[in-house]
Amino acid sequence: MVIDISAHFTFELNGPTDILLQYEAAELPEQSILSTNSQFDTSDYFARVAAQDSIGTRIWMRKDGHCEVDYKARVAIHRITADLSTLDMMEQHKLPGETIQYLFDSRYCPAERFHSFVETQFGDLTGGAKIVAMRDWVAENMSYEPGSSNANTTALDSFVERRGICRDYAHVIVTMARACGFPARYVSVYAPDVSPPDFHAIAEVFLADPDDSGSGTWHMVDGTFMADPSKTVKIGVGRDAADVSFLTSFGLCNFKEKTVTTEVFSD
Amino acid sequence: MVIDISAHFTFELNGPTDILLQYEAAELPEQSILSTNSQFDTSDYFARVAAQDSIGTRIWMRKDGHCEVDYKARVAIHRITADLSTLDMMEQHKLPGETIQYLFDSRYCPAERFHSFVETQFGDLTGGAKIVAMRDWVAENMSYEPGSSNANTTALDSFVERRGICRDYAHVIVTMARACGFPARYVSVYAPDVSPPDFHAIAEVFLADPDDSGSGTWHMVDGTFMADPSKTVKIGVGRDAADVSFLTSFGLCNFKEKTVTTEVFSD
Amino acid sequence: MVIDISAHFTFELNGPTDILLQYEAAELPEQSILSTNSQFDTSDYFARVAAQDSIGTRIWMRKDGHCEVDYKARVAIHRITADLSTLDMMEQHKLPGETIQYLFDSRYCPAERFHSFVETQFGDLTGGAKIVAMRDWVAENMSYEPGSSNANTTALDSFVERRGICRDYAHVIVTMARACGFPARYVSVYAPDVSPPDFHAIAEVFLADPDDSGSGTWHMVDGTFMADPSKTVKIGVGRDAADVSFLTSFGLCNFKEKTVTTEVFSD
Amino acid sequence: MVIDISAHFTFELNGPTDILLQYEAAELPEQSILSTNSQFDTSDYFARVAAQDSIGTRIWMRKDGHCEVDYKARVAIHRITADLSTLDMMEQHKLPGETIQYLFDSRYCPAERFHSFVETQFGDLTGGAKIVAMRDWVAENMSYEPGSSNANTTALDSFVERRGICRDYAHVIVTMARACGFPARYVSVYAPDVSPPDFHAIAEVFLADPDDSGSGTWHMVDGTFMADPSKTVKIGVGRDAADVSFLTSFGLCNFKEKTVTTEVFSD
Repeated sequence: MVIDISAHFTFELNGPTDILLQYEAAELPEQSILSTNSQFDTSDYFARVAAQDSIGTRIWMRKDGHCEVDYKARVAIHRITADLSTLDMMEQHKLPGETIQYLFDSRYCPAERFHSFVETQFGDLTGGAKIVAMRDWVAENMSYEPGSSNANTTALDSFVERRGICRDYAHVIVTMARACGFPARYVSVYAPDVSPPDFHAIAEVFLADPDDSGSGTWHMVDGTFMADPSKTVKIGVGRDAADVSFLTSFGLCNFKEKTVTTEVFSD
Repeated sequence: MVIDISAHFTFELNGPTDILLQYEAAELPEQSILSTNSQFDTSDYFARVAAQDSIGTRIWMRKDGHCEVDYKARVAIHRITADLSTLDMMEQHKLPGETIQYLFDSRYCPAERFHSFVETQFGDLTGGAKIVAMRDWVAENMSYEPGSSNANTTALDSFVERRGICRDYAHVIVTMARACGFPARYVSVYAPDVSPPDFHAIAEVFLADPDDSGSGTWHMVDGTFMADPSKTVKIGVGRDAADVSFLTSFGLCNFKEKTVTTEVFSD
Repeated sequence: MVIDISAHFTFELNGPTDILLQYEAAELPEQSILSTNSQFDTSDYFARVAAQDSIGTRIWMRKDGHCEVDYKARVAIHRITADLSTLDMMEQHKLPGETIQYLFDSRYCPAERFHSFVETQFGDLTGGAKIVAMRDWVAENMSYEPGSSNANTTALDSFVERRGICRDYAHVIVTMARACGFPARYVSVYAPDVSPPDFHAIAEVFLADPDDSGSGTWHMVDGTFMADPSKTVKIGVGRDAADVSFLTSFGLCNFKEKTVTTEVFSD
Repeated sequence: MVIDISAHFTFELNGPTDILLQYEAAELPEQSILSTNSQFDTSDYFARVAAQDSIGTRIWMRKDGHCEVDYKARVAIHRITADLSTLDMMEQHKLPGETIQYLFDSRYCPAERFHSFVETQFGDLTGGAKIVAMRDWVAENMSYEPGSSNANTTALDSFVERRGICRDYAHVIVTMARACGFPARYVSVYAPDVSPPDFHAIAEVFLADPDDSGSGTWHMVDGTFMADPSKTVKIGVGRDAADVSFLTSFGLCNFKEKTVTTEVFSD
């Protein structure tokens, strides 16, 4: 599967300002960047640094005035998708060290508070089947309402209010998965069926591999059902939405406009 | 400076349970482990994994019934302490990739919400002098009250209620530092002047080195003034208290008792 | 039904302090006080004032040092209990003015946030049958855990954590009822089947009378099922637990002990 | 002082809907309604009920489709304004029963959590001088930013974020006053110097009368300094903003537009 991506956004700065960007498709075993082109205006400073878990890169800039980012990429995806419901949970004591941070509460995912709910709601299930049930619970119980959440909205808020956008769907799944002891992280992605077209966010859960090797793999889970893993391009990962904003400004930033398109180029 | 540490704690498990421990002094350039002895009961499973930012280790166990941990270590500290007020802030665009996660909001540190307060309160100051002012603000405005906070208490709660324990003092400093654009993390430590003796927690802030090399260093900041950096032994670091609990149980755990002693062995 | 009540509690004040007490059975059409005896130490000041909605009284005191309250009462209850499921909701525009405050959000009952949940969960039901379903939902989904909530715990917290004590059960019912447009208030009561014996709290919901008179009546609803309305003695009402504490101190108060007994004297 | 008021607003209902309105100037000893004219479309149902504390009225309607409210009134104000700083606090035990509810926490005013802050910040002051200091603290430390708060924003949020609109300024003052043991309520008003012209909200605090009569009076306090008590027309009072919305809809309501003008007709 080959996917064509374009993203274009503009913003206005009011003096020299540090900007952190994270919007480029990550080069990964499961997705190859066939071509990529990021165009900016000349900037005072530009540096790429490795992003969280060494997945993708972040870009530091120091800029002023009108700024414009134009990005085009073609990405080949050869992600092997699994039937989650057949996979086992990984026993915690066998989890590799780098997954441990994803067991803990984060800014938008206060998992500790959901122990009782997940035990009652999903206690009969195990492994990937439990994750599938969480995804389906979110799809059934939440309504997708642009504008219903803001930068303070946590998974707890979304759980109570039963509404949100992709960010909130992902937070609720991440929170419930962690409440059951699964490492779960937040992933920003490009996906062709996202409507209206935009950056998208999903959850990833770490499950045991089926081969008894003792190893495990991160699996995509999307409660909005807009991102098919076989067509989804990963940008970056984090604990939750606090970690993978496509634009973070250290100073006043007047955001102007954004256009994102993601299309299947070939199967 | 050589420090002697001992920690002893017991807990009861109700069936085979996965346990994550993080209580051992970390081996680091700035602190050398002269001797160490961790004694447990026999356990079904035992593994050490690298902890966050490769500082120290976490221990995975799978155990049942009565559990007892006994730890003794002697640590030589050769940390160079700086006069924070002479150090510059590192411009964000020059920050190394691994510090970036410490700019963002975390479970207990909702820094975004403090922009206006820190601008008004500390806006006239820059660099390490700003951090010193935050530390002093916390020391002056908060009162140390064991029992006044719990596992849900965030820096926002502590800021409003003006009280807490070491965990809360550290959270408020971390939150204010991030609100000003400094990478700030949470550190669990042993320190001899902590009263009553216990595990202790402080903040660390990343500041520019004074040599114009473009590099930076993490510096300890303690609003309780109980931990002198030259005598403080680091266990582990994280975004906030959610990341560095000395004991995390994945199942019911009846915690029994804990004794921690930290003493100066020689200067 | 005649109920015998006794309550005894002691506390220590550290200088002359204003104290507000609300623990006496209210004289009401539906419950007659056959005998009552409140004994205090001599106090500097003592005054009774009408409590909220003119239900019961509050007592103002100004006292110092060791304080002891001893209360005994015998109350005849002739409350007519209705089958809630047969009663209609009162259309809001016909609600009397004094019930309107009970439609709104209060400290522990942020009803606005539950619109979506109640619509999905109870949207097929109407009138008292909807209230019965809320009561049963709470009974089924929450677990009664002394110590699991504190003075900051809201209905939102309890809804997420699925646990609490009578206070929290009542808050969740009040919140859900208001979210559906029913006036709902919080009632502190004595009830003989409360275990362990203590002050108890339940919800009351305002429903249309069955006689087409256009009038309505407050009906008791207890998600813990420990208070049978025909045996329950009302102390006072409020928006939520913030309003009907049995003891409020305006200054330091060291609470010592409390004994409450409620027994059926005769049918 | 005679004030001319006009308010005009329109909204759209999607089927027969119960509507609660509270926008008319209250007839009170301190303000006389010289003329009043409320015009609505014909409606299915219309009733006036007394509002909270018998201050002003609320209007119940049942309507459908396009709705338009047009209100004009001329009000003579003969409010005696006091120099707050000369007034004493009323000892709690002398407070009349109807003021007691205003001592407690409400939806947006979690006063209990501010005890430590107010003690430190205002502990040296007493009586009305303390209230004046709170008003000035709010004026100095908060910035007036339309759009910075929403229906979930509490005084705690506003205190941390140091910004808000009249609603939030009033909430912070009410909260701090209650934290010090003063009855404090929230008042919706018309005031000529509000900019941009709109409904306005302020705090009221209950203070002892200077005549040693043992009685007390509610006094207006406005941290935005836009409402001069001698020119301010009271609409209604409540615990906080949850209680005195000018329009509450029990069903979907598409709010269209609003124009409010308040002008001095004569001194």
